Amino acid sequence: MLPSWNEGAAKSSILDFVARITKQGGADFVPPEERIAAFDNDGTLWCEQPLQVQFFFLIDRVKELSARDPAMGERQPFKALLEQDYKVIFGLGRQALLELAFATHSGITDEHFDRAAREWLATARHPTFGRLFRGCTYRPQVELLAFLRENGFKTYIVSGGGVDFVRAFATEAYGIPREQVIGSSTKLRCDVKDNRFSLTKLPELNSFNDGEAKPRNIGLHIGRRPLLAFGNSDGDLPMLCYARSGPGTRLSLLIHHDDADREVAYDREFTLSPLVEPLDRSAEYGITVVSMKRDWKVVFE
Amino acid sequence: MLPSWNEGAAKSSILDFVARITKQGGADFVPPEERIAAFDNDGTLWCEQPLQVQFFFLIDRVKELSARDPAMGERQPFKALLEQDYKVIFGLGRQALLELAFATHSGITDEHFDRAAREWLATARHPTFGRLFRGCTYRPQVELLAFLRENGFKTYIVSGGGVDFVRAFATEAYGIPREQVIGSSTKLRCDVKDNRFSLTKLPELNSFNDGEAKPRNIGLHIGRRPLLAFGNSDGDLPMLCYARSGPGTRLSLLIHHDDADREVAYDREFTLSPLVEPLDRSAEYGITVVSMKRDWKVVFE
Repeated sequence: MLPSWNEGAAKSSILDFVARITKQGGADFVPPEERIAAFDNDGTLWCEQPLQVQFFFLIDRVKELSARDPAMGERQPFKALLEQDYKVIFGLGRQALLELAFATHSGITDEHFDRAAREWLATARHPTFGRLFRGCTYRPQVELLAFLRENGFKTYIVSGGGVDFVRAFATEAYGIPREQVIGSSTKLRCDVKDNRFSLTKLPELNSFNDGEAKPRNIGLHIGRRPLLAFGNSDGDLPMLCYARSGPGTRLSLLIHHDDADREVAYDREFTLSPLVEPLDRSAEYGITVVSMKRDWKVVFE
Repeated sequence: MLPSWNEGAAKSSILDFVARITKQGGADFVPPEERIAAFDNDGTLWCEQPLQVQFFFLIDRVKELSARDPAMGERQPFKALLEQDYKVIFGLGRQALLELAFATHSGITDEHFDRAAREWLATARHPTFGRLFRGCTYRPQVELLAFLRENGFKTYIVSGGGVDFVRAFATEAYGIPREQVIGSSTKLRCDVKDNRFSLTKLPELNSFNDGEAKPRNIGLHIGRRPLLAFGNSDGDLPMLCYARSGPGTRLSLLIHHDDADREVAYDREFTLSPLVEPLDRSAEYGITVVSMKRDWKVVFE
């Protein structure tokens, strides 16, 4: 079981938890329909350095758009993206991020967007690892997702990334169906043309799925408190605590990116998605810290 | 198959549709993961006369609240509810309905609300049929849901009713898990008390899941266009058209309540949820009309 995980406290905590909640007649038994597992995506299921993958998609979309509208490429935040000026990108606030998302992700149907994202993912490569972004998923996590499903869990992604972007690869990458992806979203408009109905993505925020929005959207979409949650940043803390503080046996896990040789070593200094509180206060919150370096035999698929 | 359905055009259209989309190698084959079926609830899966069931829950909640706060029972819309003054209730606008929902359904956690709804449903009876509301589900529809699932469909409820209310009975009544219920919803607040996280229902609308909101929320929650949709009112028309206008073979169905002997005969005059356009223009929209009287061998469970 979990062959890409090294023996140790993290792997034991997972195996022990699953054994307890699946033991028929045991004190900790949980019926299959209540076995919900919620995973963050960026930094938890695949890499998020030097930027979250969706930024590279944005960069390529901005290149396309600014080829038609050069003035766009002269303006921030678009200029920083085209120049891959990480210093400026790291300093972008929420409003600039939204502006980027709206400019590049709206005005098209969700079905059109899905095709564009799939086409991009088919060939786009990570700038330093050289591999396809699709190959930047973590093998131990893909194994864990499959292991949980074999034990009756329904596995969900609860990501700060755009829901339509994550849906475009979740099934192939993780075996997670589109309807089990919760993410940030724009509002949609129902359009009718030649008697054909479609949904157009609008440049207006519906939900920025980070921090406390994660438990709130879990309540809205799933209506059950997860038994297990897995994250890697401060924005995951409310979800980790929400899962952890339900009745009975629970498991909340946190990836610590401490493996400069095989991936990247970072935590509090990554301004786009820092990791401070869940790491510093993991014992108090009852969060199991997973060290990439110590607990994973291999990193990538 | 579908023993509670009479032979005829409606039953044939269902059997033919399912045979086509499940035939391996056939021109209309649809892979299982794309087999999404979306059902309205009130009037489609269980009765909605003389009022939607949730109104009777509201009435009992208002009775409780007004026992503690008599002034509330003197004010509209609460007064009309306590007096079961249908004429006034039928005239309530959207704002009054929301006020009722907020007064009775908010300020408590989703988990607390779930217990209250379950307790109520365990004993509450329909005012004229005499049976438990839980027994007011339609047997032909429960059979249809099971038949679709046997054929690889994931069955969803897409209801104008409150999502937490519908979730409280969807599994027992229809075999539909909580996470496959989409409904009207309030905003939620993430609360922390003694290190325990919970979600409190707020007196603020998140989504009124009727009309065009149905396809929009299907896009948000499921991210796939349903292959089959089933409704019974004008508020279901956008969902029926959205499902019907996707590529390939599709089926949209509409219940016509024309059975005064076994249930109630009504359509355009039911002001809370009228049926006019999908009935009058069913051929143009490609909607299959199901006559309760002609197509169902039995009505209730």
